[in-house]
Amino acid sequence: MLLTKDGGRYILVVKCPDKKGIIAAIAGYLAENDASITESHQFDDSIAKRFYMRIVFRPDSEHMPPLDTIRAGFADVAKRFDLTWSLQDAAAKPRVLIAVSRFGHCLYDLLHRWRSGALAIDIPAVISNHEEMRSFVEWNNIPYVCVPNTMGKAAQEAKILELSRIHKIDLVVLARYMQVLSPELCRALAGRCINIHHSFLPSFKGAKPYHQAYERGVKIIGATAHYVTTDLDEGPIIEQEVQRVHHEHTPESLVELGRDVECRVLARAVRWHAEHRVLIEGSKTVVFA
Amino acid sequence: MLLTKDGGRYILVVKCPDKKGIIAAIAGYLAENDASITESHQFDDSIAKRFYMRIVFRPDSEHMPPLDTIRAGFADVAKRFDLTWSLQDAAAKPRVLIAVSRFGHCLYDLLHRWRSGALAIDIPAVISNHEEMRSFVEWNNIPYVCVPNTMGKAAQEAKILELSRIHKIDLVVLARYMQVLSPELCRALAGRCINIHHSFLPSFKGAKPYHQAYERGVKIIGATAHYVTTDLDEGPIIEQEVQRVHHEHTPESLVELGRDVECRVLARAVRWHAEHRVLIEGSKTVVFA
Amino acid sequence: MLLTKDGGRYILVVKCPDKKGIIAAIAGYLAENDASITESHQFDDSIAKRFYMRIVFRPDSEHMPPLDTIRAGFADVAKRFDLTWSLQDAAAKPRVLIAVSRFGHCLYDLLHRWRSGALAIDIPAVISNHEEMRSFVEWNNIPYVCVPNTMGKAAQEAKILELSRIHKIDLVVLARYMQVLSPELCRALAGRCINIHHSFLPSFKGAKPYHQAYERGVKIIGATAHYVTTDLDEGPIIEQEVQRVHHEHTPESLVELGRDVECRVLARAVRWHAEHRVLIEGSKTVVFA
Amino acid sequence: MLLTKDGGRYILVVKCPDKKGIIAAIAGYLAENDASITESHQFDDSIAKRFYMRIVFRPDSEHMPPLDTIRAGFADVAKRFDLTWSLQDAAAKPRVLIAVSRFGHCLYDLLHRWRSGALAIDIPAVISNHEEMRSFVEWNNIPYVCVPNTMGKAAQEAKILELSRIHKIDLVVLARYMQVLSPELCRALAGRCINIHHSFLPSFKGAKPYHQAYERGVKIIGATAHYVTTDLDEGPIIEQEVQRVHHEHTPESLVELGRDVECRVLARAVRWHAEHRVLIEGSKTVVFA
Repeated sequence: MLLTKDGGRYILVVKCPDKKGIIAAIAGYLAENDASITESHQFDDSIAKRFYMRIVFRPDSEHMPPLDTIRAGFADVAKRFDLTWSLQDAAAKPRVLIAVSRFGHCLYDLLHRWRSGALAIDIPAVISNHEEMRSFVEWNNIPYVCVPNTMGKAAQEAKILELSRIHKIDLVVLARYMQVLSPELCRALAGRCINIHHSFLPSFKGAKPYHQAYERGVKIIGATAHYVTTDLDEGPIIEQEVQRVHHEHTPESLVELGRDVECRVLARAVRWHAEHRVLIEGSKTVVFA
Repeated sequence: MLLTKDGGRYILVVKCPDKKGIIAAIAGYLAENDASITESHQFDDSIAKRFYMRIVFRPDSEHMPPLDTIRAGFADVAKRFDLTWSLQDAAAKPRVLIAVSRFGHCLYDLLHRWRSGALAIDIPAVISNHEEMRSFVEWNNIPYVCVPNTMGKAAQEAKILELSRIHKIDLVVLARYMQVLSPELCRALAGRCINIHHSFLPSFKGAKPYHQAYERGVKIIGATAHYVTTDLDEGPIIEQEVQRVHHEHTPESLVELGRDVECRVLARAVRWHAEHRVLIEGSKTVVFA
Repeated sequence: MLLTKDGGRYILVVKCPDKKGIIAAIAGYLAENDASITESHQFDDSIAKRFYMRIVFRPDSEHMPPLDTIRAGFADVAKRFDLTWSLQDAAAKPRVLIAVSRFGHCLYDLLHRWRSGALAIDIPAVISNHEEMRSFVEWNNIPYVCVPNTMGKAAQEAKILELSRIHKIDLVVLARYMQVLSPELCRALAGRCINIHHSFLPSFKGAKPYHQAYERGVKIIGATAHYVTTDLDEGPIIEQEVQRVHHEHTPESLVELGRDVECRVLARAVRWHAEHRVLIEGSKTVVFA
Repeated sequence: MLLTKDGGRYILVVKCPDKKGIIAAIAGYLAENDASITESHQFDDSIAKRFYMRIVFRPDSEHMPPLDTIRAGFADVAKRFDLTWSLQDAAAKPRVLIAVSRFGHCLYDLLHRWRSGALAIDIPAVISNHEEMRSFVEWNNIPYVCVPNTMGKAAQEAKILELSRIHKIDLVVLARYMQVLSPELCRALAGRCINIHHSFLPSFKGAKPYHQAYERGVKIIGATAHYVTTDLDEGPIIEQEVQRVHHEHTPESLVELGRDVECRVLARAVRWHAEHRVLIEGSKTVVFA
């Protein structure tokens, strides 16, 4: 029995072709198994004829069967409605590998959220191509792995894959890693690698987006968290946020100002992913935030 | 059969004590009746042990029974779970009486949204204590009723009630009406009268909130749409929005700047109410926006 | 003497190469002429080595000479510092020609601000390629000129130029005019034609930006007011604003939601231009808002 | 000669009764002394008839006299216009004492900004009534002084004063210190003690503002940075920011969500104070941000 003190929480995420009776079938199955729904979000995409749902449930009594039994029984429902699904214990924290370069702002932000309990993840390691962040990471009692640029991209990417394997990593977070991943690594991490791009995509892809923004004279800058794909800065967007700027801002002050936005956007994207709130569909996402 | 071209849409709104199996029972009932859920929001208030839901459904086939039959059958489910509920044809537009004084900005905004089809309401009449808005209202082919302040508050309130009766009014909107309603009228319109207050409540209740804001030196002003109750500016809040200000703003420029915020906040509140997205619970609201 | 009741207000706008003593020279000249500065903004662009200033002043006594005398005397200061400058009576309202198509939201918004006195401009005429807005414009006692698409773009543009000449138009506002201007017209109206583009530029230039935004799956949409140049949607940006969206939004609901943002952005850009707050420099603007 | 590599920067801040020719006199004085103005903000309060200015200047040549000479000469101008003024080397960092309790979010945020160079202050010490933050503060090589609540408020306040004296503290920052200062300490630190209050003042003064916000059912929460005065949460407001919330938020999740807002608001307020951008006038502030 998985019944924890407050009864535990389980997260069921589903996507499928739209069909009548899905909610009734799923809610009915859970009710029969003495599970009580505490949160539910769904989205019926009337254009694509697709259905998406995220349900949080808890045991309503000690008669709720173990999670594996619920999973096994749910397979029938899943088959009937052609569901792609996952069912997780909400207490199981995703294991996250953070990659960072010399700019520490996103790393600081993620680690403080993690320390304070606001971000329910495990961080088995931080990888970097520079030494600058070692002291702070190690002060947090997290192993720091540095593969400097002199060792080459192949060695860096091999280390990312090795750490992912060893630590059973669920998610890689590029917290201003400043390196373009190879197509092979992008594919290997498909759907489980989040990048923060320091512009309001699709504006200003690629290098030096704040300098591009300065040249164009925009009045608002932004940041975008997205899943990494082989198309640079074209992956499914999870979250964006913006910040007003004006003519007095230099490229340098835009960089400075943008840092806060990057931190917030990335932190939300990682949290939502960790809480199974993000469903990828082609080049877009459904986010039950 | 209510099957319209795109199959019609119906809105079921429910509130009740929290109990296991509510969603299964409701979703099951709809599935049995050939109704397909297209939108669903719920909120399980774990503190108050209350449950709230708003479902939009459409006929899945021509076998869905008429709305009255569905209503009758649903009474059983409602009884079992102790539901407070309503079931509406989404195409039925609420009938709204707008009350205005001399400041027209909220009225203009509501009427243009209504004309462009963005606000699905009927407006059988506009009432005012001044003549200023007559020309614009009549250009919109809406009857304009003026009860000047010289006739006294009792006459004005009697007219509001009379118009409400004659036109079967579902909602009274105080679009900067600038009059405090009597406790009797507040009670008569309980839950169906929305006011826009030109401050970020609970700050700056009562008269001249922008002047109060100026005196206090706040850096942000706001507006609040709320249901009217007998406690002035204390009714359940539906929506709020804010606007940055700074030391250069005079009380007059705050008034000016605040108008846009008032328009937007009131328009959203009215639309949400009209779409049955707002559930009142005591002094608070649940808004499924 | 131009001394009005509250003493009048005059607006001096200046741009020039950066040089020591500019502020002292200008402020000194005004003080000598019994003018008192009530507002002053300046921007010293340390990258481009350019200086920009906007000053509002009023007569400090009845000894302030007439505006033309002040202008004549200022020419010396201007020569010394190589100034590009203008000096205007703040009470002189710019004459604005509004061009509109079938979507009226920006027009409604501008005309209500104008009626309420919030937008200090004169509107000698509205031009359109459709009849839809005639009734509302004429209710406002503004002449409405319709040149339907059947008459061809050349006729439409000739009419814009003719109206500009006849009415001594200072500014043409494309309030969702939905027509790409010819390069000739763009050049003829250089620096005095504002367009509202319904995206957050440089994202989603050209046609159907909300549909482009839907396809890309962005989480924020926006609108951009800019001066029209021969490069489509590439002119100097005056103002931008954004709005959060999510996976439930269809292209149609993005269009709907975007309207409010377009109205606000365009209204601010027109007001700032009318108040001589916008200085164009190459492909960018300095906005003293 | 204070001429640094890029010529140095000096900040002149002025407030006085409004009078003609102030700008000319000040700008003229600087030009005569070979100083070139690079930034200038002023505010002419037409209601209170007061004038405020902040100027940044740099040497235009090696002939600019030393700062003390400029100060001495400026005294004449100051006398003529009845100025309250200060003139600072922009490179001189204010010395800041941070007080913290058990919640570290604001402290983390301030220290990371300080480490990255985004916040140009010196932090000679951090004081707390708890031990929780010692490790992080000491990792930053900043002395940590703990005076536990068991020693009493008098001892804690004596230590604050002692540290202020020893370290020549310019500013005390209550970064969620969670203690109400005595009137004596408030007076001793008048104009140089900034507090972050976790509500959008004047709403929800005093204890547990997020719980008050939850009870009232507001749709937006906020935070306020203000100078501490003897009236609790009534001091001059420097900065505010808000965050949308909804019915699903519990008091605990409001606390969580509010942390980010508190960090940002406090960081801006401290930076603006450190850069001499905040002028206090009675119960309000002029902020040249």
